Amino acid sequence: MSQASTKTTHRPRIAVFDSGVGGLTVLRAIAGQVPDADYLYFGDTARLPYGTKSRETVARYAIEAALFLQDLGIDMLVIGCNTATALALYDIKGAVDVPVIGVIDPGADRAAEISRSREAVVFATEATISSHAYQRALARRGFATHEKACPLLVPLVEEGWIEHPVTEQVARIYMIEALRVASMNTDVLVLGCTHYPLIRPLLRRVVPQKIAIVDSAESTAQVVAKELGVAPGAQPNALPSYRFFVTDSTEKFRRMAPLFLGFPVDGVEHVDLGG
Amino acid sequence: MSQASTKTTHRPRIAVFDSGVGGLTVLRAIAGQVPDADYLYFGDTARLPYGTKSRETVARYAIEAALFLQDLGIDMLVIGCNTATALALYDIKGAVDVPVIGVIDPGADRAAEISRSREAVVFATEATISSHAYQRALARRGFATHEKACPLLVPLVEEGWIEHPVTEQVARIYMIEALRVASMNTDVLVLGCTHYPLIRPLLRRVVPQKIAIVDSAESTAQVVAKELGVAPGAQPNALPSYRFFVTDSTEKFRRMAPLFLGFPVDGVEHVDLGG
Repeated sequence: MSQASTKTTHRPRIAVFDSGVGGLTVLRAIAGQVPDADYLYFGDTARLPYGTKSRETVARYAIEAALFLQDLGIDMLVIGCNTATALALYDIKGAVDVPVIGVIDPGADRAAEISRSREAVVFATEATISSHAYQRALARRGFATHEKACPLLVPLVEEGWIEHPVTEQVARIYMIEALRVASMNTDVLVLGCTHYPLIRPLLRRVVPQKIAIVDSAESTAQVVAKELGVAPGAQPNALPSYRFFVTDSTEKFRRMAPLFLGFPVDGVEHVDLGG
Repeated sequence: MSQASTKTTHRPRIAVFDSGVGGLTVLRAIAGQVPDADYLYFGDTARLPYGTKSRETVARYAIEAALFLQDLGIDMLVIGCNTATALALYDIKGAVDVPVIGVIDPGADRAAEISRSREAVVFATEATISSHAYQRALARRGFATHEKACPLLVPLVEEGWIEHPVTEQVARIYMIEALRVASMNTDVLVLGCTHYPLIRPLLRRVVPQKIAIVDSAESTAQVVAKELGVAPGAQPNALPSYRFFVTDSTEKFRRMAPLFLGFPVDGVEHVDLGG
């Protein structure tokens, strides 16, 4: 077996990187598909948000984190952050020796699998929308895309208003605004932000039934499983292990994490990567 | 007239500093009280939000901006930013030679003028609440204070939902949550965030009538006018002039500014203060 392959003879060590807590939904999805693995999660919480920073700065930050994770002996690095994927995926790939998977292409691939009309709407943060990364990824797959910035959804999720009438009303307004501009034939909505899987059940009630919802976290997890040669539905006896690293307060991360991950975390480790 | 006095024989040059656009409500309030002045506004938009950063970092950023403004020949510096006031007012005062006015003490003074019960609620961002700067400022004036973090109000204002049913619903929820914990005798609500004056009419509908609303921007403007010896209601023929400096995209600032300022801006100047 060549060095380049990701299939390991040992239990795989998979790192997930994000600027904050959102990537925990990606971690959760991957661990659901590949439970027989050791997970390292890195949240660059002292330097978030990445969305307001330049490409060069985001690439530098992400590479620092990627090298830190590589030194811990990982088999694969997942960029569980739409902004870092949009701005710095190729820089990160160039900086480390392990396979690197971003969240944008898996989401776009999944959209291409299920769409008939090739007309999509993307919900994401203002930063991700401004990068047009989803629009480009979907255009390469033959899509016409309407991109809709949804700046209130992240703060609503972080407030914990997951099943809240206000969140439903806001999501409905965004959906109506998007459909006023998007093609009538739109048959897929791509969730281009790692916070949004948490409100997927709520979105399902708001989004017209003929529009399928693609969750990038879930799609990324499927790509990771395939890359590692894990069969869908394979459920080994082993349970995943987790280590968490953050660059800012471990306390705040510990408080927010269960919302995204579905279980409480302890032993969050603080890392200082400098300014 | 001594150097220390702020009363100038020339038309005063007043600088207002903030991490972003919120301080524009402070600028607007001051220009309303002191129209016969030249205004410089500095938004450190490349390095926001300050709320997630350490005291040392916020102080360093704010001092860099303060020195930049001082070099342009100002008579007074207003820190139109609750986080910078809470964390770095005394550092900034120590670094420049002109009078420096923050937004917290004027709001607390105004609350002390109008409250009978000395029981207050403060609405602010999570960062300002965590600093307990308002609680301390109000405690020095004999108040018992309930501090309520309102993380959704800034994104709602920045979305432009100033008179929107969702914003009203969110404000009502925050008010109910605050009053469930605060003293029954609370008779003043201090708006401890420079974004909130924009939704003051909406808040007035949501907040019980017996509770007066103190707007820090307005209170700060009164202090500035008094310091400059401008009589309340004095309306000279001259109009204010404005210059705007930002450290990030001038385009985004130009787009957001009218919402906060009440008129369109042009000629926004980009400044690079480094990382």
